[in-house]
Amino acid sequence: MERIERHACFGGWQDVYQHQSAVLGCEMRFAAYLPPQAQVQACPVIYWLSGLTCNEQNFITKAGAQQYAAAHGVILIAPDTSPRGDKVADDDAYDLGQGAGFYVNALQEPWNSHYRMYDYIVSELPTLVEAHLPATEKRSIFGHSMGGHGALMIGLRNASRYCSLSAFSPIVAPSQVPWGRKAFMAYLGDDKATWAQYDTIHLLDEAASIPPILVDVGTADPFLHDQLKPSLLADICDKKQHKYTLRLHDGYDHSYYFISSFVGEHIAFHAQNLK
Amino acid sequence: MERIERHACFGGWQDVYQHQSAVLGCEMRFAAYLPPQAQVQACPVIYWLSGLTCNEQNFITKAGAQQYAAAHGVILIAPDTSPRGDKVADDDAYDLGQGAGFYVNALQEPWNSHYRMYDYIVSELPTLVEAHLPATEKRSIFGHSMGGHGALMIGLRNASRYCSLSAFSPIVAPSQVPWGRKAFMAYLGDDKATWAQYDTIHLLDEAASIPPILVDVGTADPFLHDQLKPSLLADICDKKQHKYTLRLHDGYDHSYYFISSFVGEHIAFHAQNLK
Repeated sequence: MERIERHACFGGWQDVYQHQSAVLGCEMRFAAYLPPQAQVQACPVIYWLSGLTCNEQNFITKAGAQQYAAAHGVILIAPDTSPRGDKVADDDAYDLGQGAGFYVNALQEPWNSHYRMYDYIVSELPTLVEAHLPATEKRSIFGHSMGGHGALMIGLRNASRYCSLSAFSPIVAPSQVPWGRKAFMAYLGDDKATWAQYDTIHLLDEAASIPPILVDVGTADPFLHDQLKPSLLADICDKKQHKYTLRLHDGYDHSYYFISSFVGEHIAFHAQNLK
Repeated sequence: MERIERHACFGGWQDVYQHQSAVLGCEMRFAAYLPPQAQVQACPVIYWLSGLTCNEQNFITKAGAQQYAAAHGVILIAPDTSPRGDKVADDDAYDLGQGAGFYVNALQEPWNSHYRMYDYIVSELPTLVEAHLPATEKRSIFGHSMGGHGALMIGLRNASRYCSLSAFSPIVAPSQVPWGRKAFMAYLGDDKATWAQYDTIHLLDEAASIPPILVDVGTADPFLHDQLKPSLLADICDKKQHKYTLRLHDGYDHSYYFISSFVGEHIAFHAQNLK
């Protein structure tokens, strides 16, 4: 694991690391914000999963999250969204292949040789972080759009590993919407029982209890009705009597301007649950 | 003047406008953050001048400044750094031509037909802003690197028009450093008296009094000793008994991670002086 970027930021360090991933079979990068507190003690970690087309840079350059991590003494880890490189299968479309891993373990050719983002996020990445950075084993997870799907899905399937889950503009029902159906068909094949294991709505329906969940969506999000469908999240949580917070923000869209406006509240929510 | 982007952000709007510039003879874009207060009253304006290679996007996507503008009720205007387009002279180097206007009125061929960023920033842009946006005629100005040079130089030459000036990592002595000498020779020719009118150190030497000035520089800035030379600013202000604040920040570099860490203090400084 090699550090390839380091910038002073809000009294801490915004770093980028590069490492050979055994799970993904390629070289990967992830960003790590170390708050000032990490210079003297191990800190809990919040994982950020980005959306379609993003890599490890988008969140750290655009979200303005470091100031809140510094205030609360939490580490922020932002990985890439797929395996990368010339030897990794890809597709011309923005919503399949590199930049669009959908946080699943692929079963279908040609994707199954590298696309194992589920295992990378759940196991390999935290193992690396906890071995090499001043991190405790307290974890929370959040993300945006495809990464909001990833954060909720991974958090629900591994509830003992994450203290809290949150998402901006998440794809909550990938089995039911165009982005998710396209990706799941390509990566997983047509077995709907396999899809269900990566679908937040299904996981909420199966869960006896869930970690604290916060979801923010903008009413001016162009993907709201066709791809995100947050009302499905509300419906299933109400039906199952799961506690959750879903907020609709008037006039906000799908961009990092929306994320930056509320990321401070998400980090405060996770910091509270990480205590 | 046409609005080509609008995003809800911290209760206000992050807009981008496009207009035909009479001064520059080309189509230009600028960004405008309108805080929530601008929906009910006219607000003072802080102009941001970006550095080499930037356009109107860099500051609004990376600095995280909107939250402070919302807190203080100030408008933020971020223009492009040069005239733009196929008909506008350019150079292969990153530090000359498009993206590198240096905020001067060019006198030399081929630059003199479009490169009049000084007049654009001092006159045409504020006239547009004050006519079409909910802006008062109270103005402050700040910037980064080449734009730090622009902000200090323009503010000193037009002290009655700006309530306060600030800069991150500014080129304070363009006549004495490689970036500035290359640009001034190309745009202005070899007359050093002309250069002096665009040189902050010279302007500070000539000024009887100056507006409030705040300058931040990082000690890990790779351009500190060859291009920025903040000690020249301190020396001339001390000699002339000008009041100023110059802060050296240990470990910070030339990036937006540095700017984002202290932009809140700069906006608070300007807001205080705009009252």
